[in-house]
Amino acid sequence: MKLITSGESHGPALVAVLEGLPAGLAVASKVIQHELDRRQRGYGAGPRMKIEQDAAQIIGGVMEGKTTGAPLSLLIPNRDHARWRGKQVEPLTIPRPGHADLAGAVKYGHRDLRLALERASARETAARVAAGAVCKHLLRQFGITVGGYVTAIGAASADVNSIPYLERFALAEASDVRCPDAQAAEAMHTMIQQAIASRDTLGGIIEVLALDVPAGLGSYSSWETRLEARLGAAVLSIQAIKGVEIGPAFENAHLSGTQAQDAIQLEAEGGVLFRPTNRAGGLEGGITTGQPLWVRAAMKPIATTLTPQHSIDLATGQEMLTGYERSDFCPVPRAVPIVEAMVAFVLADALLEKLGGDAMVDLLPRFASLRQVRLADLPVDGFPHLFWPE
Amino acid sequence: MKLITSGESHGPALVAVLEGLPAGLAVASKVIQHELDRRQRGYGAGPRMKIEQDAAQIIGGVMEGKTTGAPLSLLIPNRDHARWRGKQVEPLTIPRPGHADLAGAVKYGHRDLRLALERASARETAARVAAGAVCKHLLRQFGITVGGYVTAIGAASADVNSIPYLERFALAEASDVRCPDAQAAEAMHTMIQQAIASRDTLGGIIEVLALDVPAGLGSYSSWETRLEARLGAAVLSIQAIKGVEIGPAFENAHLSGTQAQDAIQLEAEGGVLFRPTNRAGGLEGGITTGQPLWVRAAMKPIATTLTPQHSIDLATGQEMLTGYERSDFCPVPRAVPIVEAMVAFVLADALLEKLGGDAMVDLLPRFASLRQVRLADLPVDGFPHLFWPE
Amino acid sequence: MKLITSGESHGPALVAVLEGLPAGLAVASKVIQHELDRRQRGYGAGPRMKIEQDAAQIIGGVMEGKTTGAPLSLLIPNRDHARWRGKQVEPLTIPRPGHADLAGAVKYGHRDLRLALERASARETAARVAAGAVCKHLLRQFGITVGGYVTAIGAASADVNSIPYLERFALAEASDVRCPDAQAAEAMHTMIQQAIASRDTLGGIIEVLALDVPAGLGSYSSWETRLEARLGAAVLSIQAIKGVEIGPAFENAHLSGTQAQDAIQLEAEGGVLFRPTNRAGGLEGGITTGQPLWVRAAMKPIATTLTPQHSIDLATGQEMLTGYERSDFCPVPRAVPIVEAMVAFVLADALLEKLGGDAMVDLLPRFASLRQVRLADLPVDGFPHLFWPE
Amino acid sequence: MKLITSGESHGPALVAVLEGLPAGLAVASKVIQHELDRRQRGYGAGPRMKIEQDAAQIIGGVMEGKTTGAPLSLLIPNRDHARWRGKQVEPLTIPRPGHADLAGAVKYGHRDLRLALERASARETAARVAAGAVCKHLLRQFGITVGGYVTAIGAASADVNSIPYLERFALAEASDVRCPDAQAAEAMHTMIQQAIASRDTLGGIIEVLALDVPAGLGSYSSWETRLEARLGAAVLSIQAIKGVEIGPAFENAHLSGTQAQDAIQLEAEGGVLFRPTNRAGGLEGGITTGQPLWVRAAMKPIATTLTPQHSIDLATGQEMLTGYERSDFCPVPRAVPIVEAMVAFVLADALLEKLGGDAMVDLLPRFASLRQVRLADLPVDGFPHLFWPE
Repeated sequence: MKLITSGESHGPALVAVLEGLPAGLAVASKVIQHELDRRQRGYGAGPRMKIEQDAAQIIGGVMEGKTTGAPLSLLIPNRDHARWRGKQVEPLTIPRPGHADLAGAVKYGHRDLRLALERASARETAARVAAGAVCKHLLRQFGITVGGYVTAIGAASADVNSIPYLERFALAEASDVRCPDAQAAEAMHTMIQQAIASRDTLGGIIEVLALDVPAGLGSYSSWETRLEARLGAAVLSIQAIKGVEIGPAFENAHLSGTQAQDAIQLEAEGGVLFRPTNRAGGLEGGITTGQPLWVRAAMKPIATTLTPQHSIDLATGQEMLTGYERSDFCPVPRAVPIVEAMVAFVLADALLEKLGGDAMVDLLPRFASLRQVRLADLPVDGFPHLFWPE
Repeated sequence: MKLITSGESHGPALVAVLEGLPAGLAVASKVIQHELDRRQRGYGAGPRMKIEQDAAQIIGGVMEGKTTGAPLSLLIPNRDHARWRGKQVEPLTIPRPGHADLAGAVKYGHRDLRLALERASARETAARVAAGAVCKHLLRQFGITVGGYVTAIGAASADVNSIPYLERFALAEASDVRCPDAQAAEAMHTMIQQAIASRDTLGGIIEVLALDVPAGLGSYSSWETRLEARLGAAVLSIQAIKGVEIGPAFENAHLSGTQAQDAIQLEAEGGVLFRPTNRAGGLEGGITTGQPLWVRAAMKPIATTLTPQHSIDLATGQEMLTGYERSDFCPVPRAVPIVEAMVAFVLADALLEKLGGDAMVDLLPRFASLRQVRLADLPVDGFPHLFWPE
Repeated sequence: MKLITSGESHGPALVAVLEGLPAGLAVASKVIQHELDRRQRGYGAGPRMKIEQDAAQIIGGVMEGKTTGAPLSLLIPNRDHARWRGKQVEPLTIPRPGHADLAGAVKYGHRDLRLALERASARETAARVAAGAVCKHLLRQFGITVGGYVTAIGAASADVNSIPYLERFALAEASDVRCPDAQAAEAMHTMIQQAIASRDTLGGIIEVLALDVPAGLGSYSSWETRLEARLGAAVLSIQAIKGVEIGPAFENAHLSGTQAQDAIQLEAEGGVLFRPTNRAGGLEGGITTGQPLWVRAAMKPIATTLTPQHSIDLATGQEMLTGYERSDFCPVPRAVPIVEAMVAFVLADALLEKLGGDAMVDLLPRFASLRQVRLADLPVDGFPHLFWPE
Repeated sequence: MKLITSGESHGPALVAVLEGLPAGLAVASKVIQHELDRRQRGYGAGPRMKIEQDAAQIIGGVMEGKTTGAPLSLLIPNRDHARWRGKQVEPLTIPRPGHADLAGAVKYGHRDLRLALERASARETAARVAAGAVCKHLLRQFGITVGGYVTAIGAASADVNSIPYLERFALAEASDVRCPDAQAAEAMHTMIQQAIASRDTLGGIIEVLALDVPAGLGSYSSWETRLEARLGAAVLSIQAIKGVEIGPAFENAHLSGTQAQDAIQLEAEGGVLFRPTNRAGGLEGGITTGQPLWVRAAMKPIATTLTPQHSIDLATGQEMLTGYERSDFCPVPRAVPIVEAMVAFVLADALLEKLGGDAMVDLLPRFASLRQVRLADLPVDGFPHLFWPE
C-alpha cells in the first residue's frame, strides 16, 4: 500500500490517498469518524481542538459502501480555513526552536516561515488518522486489534504490566490522558496542570500494541522488508516523535542474553508453540512471531511554549523571543491514535503482502489457511543436506 | 539510491549493489577494506572472525578507479564456504529464541531451520558495510564525517559529553570495545569477560554522529521523506537492533518544552545562526539543521548463548535445549561500523536528492552554492500575504 | 515525482496528487484550466463533454500562488455526480468487449460491472491532465515546450513533415480534430461523420513532441531509468492507448543501419554538435540527445459503439448485445492533451532528477550550468587507460 | 519483484539480483543455461558470441537447489575480461550515432566515451536473460508458457497467423533467424547476407506471447499498475527497442470500433466465457483477459555498421568517420529471449502480487482457487444500487 497526504494546516482541506486496498471492505463513515474524534480529545489539548471538529468525506475508492480496489481518497475540510481565506497575514520571521521554521527556510528558501510551518504542522496527522482508521478496520476483519495508551507524561510514568491488553485500551479511552493506570493518570493530569501554569509543555511515551497478529509477516530477506524498519519509519515520521523501540529495546540493551530472549514452549494441547514472555516485542528477525506486536514511541515536549524562547528575527538580525502560535500543552494523549494509525498502516501493508489478492472474499480463506506457529504446520526434515553441492 | 544485498552466511559470497552513485567518485579498494576490517575487530567477537578476513571485489560500476554512474556491485567471498560446500549438514530442528529460526519456518515453510538462519544472520552486514564505505567516502568529498562509538555494554555506561566529537571517534577506534571513555571501556571489558565466563552474551548502546552535515537535507513535505523515518528504518533494519532515537529522545520525553529545545543564536561574526545545544539530534521537522546528526541505537544481547535456552524440537515435539551455533559474545563494538554504514547510506541518499546531477564534477559546485544557515542566505519578507485569496 | 489519482467517473470528484515539485513555482489556476478545457474539446466527443466543464481546485501544496515544496493536490468535482447521488441504478451485467468490465469482475469479484467501469473509465484522465498542466508549466520555466497533435484517425492520415514544430501545435489547436494538416483534417472530419452515421467509433495516432529539451535526461545505467521505458509506461497507461514508439520505431525496424541513424555534425559557429535528422526520436541509450523528443501513440477505436456488440449476460448466461453507455465517437483529438500530460510528467521528473534541489530559485542557475552538447563542454581525454588494473 | 543488474561489457562479470521470489522454487542451473545459450545463437550475430559462452553462477538465494525467499543473485563472468584486464586502451573520442556515447558524455561528463558504452551495451542483457529464465521457470510451475519469435527482419516479413502458438515457438527455435515461417526465414537469411555484404545492419520485429495466463493480473486502479504500462516499460528498456504494442495496436488504430473488439462468447460446455479473436492482445483495462498475452517490439537496426558513419572527433573538433566496435549484423534473432525475459519478469511480478504469499507450497493452492472467466465464478447481482447514498 501507499499512503499519501496533502494539504496545509490552514488551507482548504487535507487529503489522504490510500492505494492498494482490496475490494469489498465495507467502510462506514463512522469508522473513520471514531478515530478522528479520538485524535481531538485529550487533556492538554490547545484551543484549536474546539474549532476543528474534523470529518472526512470519502471522495474515491468506495461504491455501495465498499471499497472497489481503486485508491481510497479522503477529504478533511479545515474548518479554520474560512477565517484565513482572503485575510492579510503578517509574515513570520522569527524561527521557533524545535519547529521546522528555520529548516524550511534553509531548505526551500521560504521568505515567510509560515510556508514551512503550514505543512510541517501536526495538523497533517488528521489525514493519517483517517487513512489509518481504514487500515485498523481492515485488520479487524482478520481479528487483529490495534490499540494504544500513554505510559509517561513528563516525569509521571505508569505501570501497566498487570493490566490485560484489551483492558489497557479500554481504561485508556476512559482517561483524558489516555493512561490505563489510574494513579499515574492522576499524576499526569497534575503535571499537565503545572505545565500550563508555568506556560510550558510536556512530552511523553506512547505504547501501541497489535494483538492476534499472525506469525510470518515481514521478512529478514531484505533489509527494507524487516518489520522493525518499516514500523520504525512509520512511527518516526510522526511530528515530534524522535525515538522508537520494539518492545523494551533500550532496557534489553543492558541485560544479558539469557535474560533477554523469550523461551519457546509447547502448549499442553493443540500443539501451539508459545512464548511465556515477549521481550522481543513480537518480532524476531524482522518477522511477526504471533506474540503481541509492541511498539514504544518517545514524543518530545511540544516546541511551542507560552514561555517565549530565544531566537533571532531573520528580518533584522536581532535577538528576539519567539511569538506564540496556537498549540497544545501536551500532545501525548492525542498522539496515541496517530501512532496506532501508522502501526496499523504498516501492519495492514505487511498482511496484504502475505495474502496477495484483490478482494476480501479471496483474502479471508487465504488468511484462514495461513501457516500457524503449531507443530502440525511446521513439518521438519530429518535428512542431512548438501546446501551447496560441489 | 538503492542498496540491495544478497547472499547467505555460508554460501559462495555476499553481494551488494548500490544504485544511484554519481560518476567520477574515486573508489579505492582500501576505502572499502578499511571498513570491512573495522567490522571484524572488537572484543567479544566469536571465533568466526578469524576465518572471515573479508575482502570485497568491485564487479561493476567502476572504471579507471572511478564510478561511472552505473550501479556499483561488490562481491565478498565467504572464505568459510569451502568448508560447507558439498558437505552433508544435519538439519536444524530446534528453533533458537531470539533468532529468525521459528519465524522463518512459519513464514516460508522451511523444513530445515538453517534455511532461515543462513539469510537472517548478521553475516549479511558485511555487504552493507562495504557499500556503506562507499557512501561514507562520498560524504567525505563534501566534508561530511560519519563516525560512531559504543556508550553502553550491559550495565556499563560511558560518559562522552566532555569529549569533542572527532576525538570520540579516534578514542573509540583505539579501544577494543570501541568506547571513547577509558574508564567505561574497562568496565565494559570486564563485563564481557564475565559474560564469556558465565556462557552468556551482552548487548548495548551505539551512537553514530554525522558532522558538518549541511542544513536542509530531508523533508517534512511527505511522511516518508522525513529524515527521522529514513534513518530509523535503516538503523532498525540491522540485525539485533530494536530501538533507535534521534538525539536523547527518550530522555527528552520526560522534560518540559523549555528544557528540550535548542535556542537559536547568531554568531558575532559571519551572520551564522547556531544552536548552543543539540537536543534535537540535528533534525527539526525531518530536516537537518546543520548541527551534528546524532543517532542512538539499542542492540539486544546476542541471542545465541553458550548457555542453552529452552525450546522445542520441532521434529519430536519434545522440550529441548538449543544447540550452539558459532557466534559473538558481544557484538556491540563490531556493530558500530554497521550503524555508521546505514546512517551514511541514508545521508548520502538525502544529499544526492538535494544536489541532483550525475557527476561529481557537477555536484561539488552545487554543494558550494547550497543555502546556509546564515542571515545573508535567508532573506525574509516584510509584507502581509494572502495565502488563500478569495 | 509521484503522480497519484483517485476518484470514480460519477463519484463526487477526482483527485490528483503530485509529489516532488520544487518550491516557488507560480501556479495560476488558468494554467490548469487551459489544459482541462483542451481535454474537453474535439470533434467526435460525446454528449458528456457538455455536462462536465471541468475545473480544478487547488487543495494543497500552493500558498501565495506558488508551490511550497509540499505535495500538490487538485480536486475536480464531477458535475455529473449530482444526477447519480442517491439514485437507484440497475446493475450492469453484460460485459462490454474492449472495456475492463469483464476483467474487473474476474479480478475483483465485482457483482455489478459498474464497479469496474467507474474507475477504469477515461474520465480519470481529467486528473492526469490537471497534474500534467503543472508539469508542462514547470518545463516551460526552463524553456521546454510540450505539444501534440493527431496524425491519423481511422484510415485518414496526415503528413506533417514539412510543417515546423511550433506551427504544428498552433494549427492543431485551431483544428477540431487537432490535426495540423488541413487536408487530412478534412478527411478525418468526414471519417468521424461516417462513423457517427454508421453508429461506429474510430481510433488513431497521436504525436507528442517536447522541444528544447536539454541533453542528458534519463539514463542507461539501470533498465528502469531509460527514458524510453518511462515514457512508454506513462503513455501506455492511458486508457485505450495500446502502442507507443519513440520516433518512427516501427518504420526504422524495416530499414538498414546506415539509413536509421542520425549523423553527428558540428555547427559552423558555437561548437554545438547537432543532428541533421531525428530518427532516434530524441533519445539515444535511454537519454535525451537534445533533439526534439518525439513520442507516437496508437489509440484503439473506442470500445463503446452505438452498434451493439456480442456479449453474454452474466446474470442469465444468455447471449446478449451490449447496452450503450454514453461515450465519444472518436476520442483521439481529446486524447492529445492527455498524452502531453503524461509525457510532461515523465520529462519533468527526469529534469528534476538531473537538477535536484528544492526550490525554483536554486534550479534555474543549475539548469543554466548544465553540460551542453557542445565541444567546449565535452573535454576529452587523450591517454590510454587501464580500466581494470591487474 | 525487483530486478537489478550491474556490470560492464568488458568488466569482470555481470550481476543480476532478483528480489521477491517465493521460497521453494527448484532452480536448476540448466534452466538458466538454456536461456543464456538461446541468447547467444542466431544468424547475424557478430564474432563476440564465440568468445562469450556465458554461464551463470548462483551466488545467493538458493539452498538445496531451491529458492529460500531471499534475493536471488547470479554472476556471469565476462570471459572476454581477461583480454582487457591490465591492458592500455586508447580512449574513444568519436561518438557513434545511435549509441549512448555522446549522450553519456553529456550526462556524466565522461572524457572517454568507452565509459558510456561499457554500461550502455546490450551485453548487459545477459544478466536480464539469466534472471528472466528464473521468471519463466516460475511461470511454468503455474502452467504459463512464455515464448517468442521474429516476424520481420528488414523488409522481410513473416505470416504466422495460421501456425498454432506452441508450434511457432518450436519452429522459431529450429530456425537460425528465429522465424516460424520457413519462407520468410529464408528471405530474412538472404537479407542478412546482403546486409553483411554491404557492411550494413538490420533491425526487425519480435513477438512474444504468454500462453495460459490467468485472467485478472494487472489493474486499472492506478495508472502505474496497468499491465500495458509495465510491459511497455520492460520491453522498451531493452537496448535498441524503441517501439512496443500490445496486440496489433498500430493496425487497430486505423480500424473502426466494431472491427477492433473481441466479442464475448460462452463455451457450449463448462460455462467458460471466451473470445473468438484477440485484437486486444490479451489485455483489457490493463488486466489480463485470459487470452494469450501478445507483445510486439520494434528493434532498430544495430547502430554499429562496418560502413563508417559521420561523426565528429571530440578531441579535435574534426569531422570523422566512426570506428568499428565489434558487434552483430542483425541482433533480432538473439533479442527474442531478451524480450521474453522482460515479459516473463513483468508477468511473474503481477502473478505474485495476485497470489501473495512466501512459498510455492502456499502459492499453488491459491492459484488453483483463482477466479476464472467462467459463469460460475462470476455471480452477479440483480438489485439496483445506491452507489453514493445521499
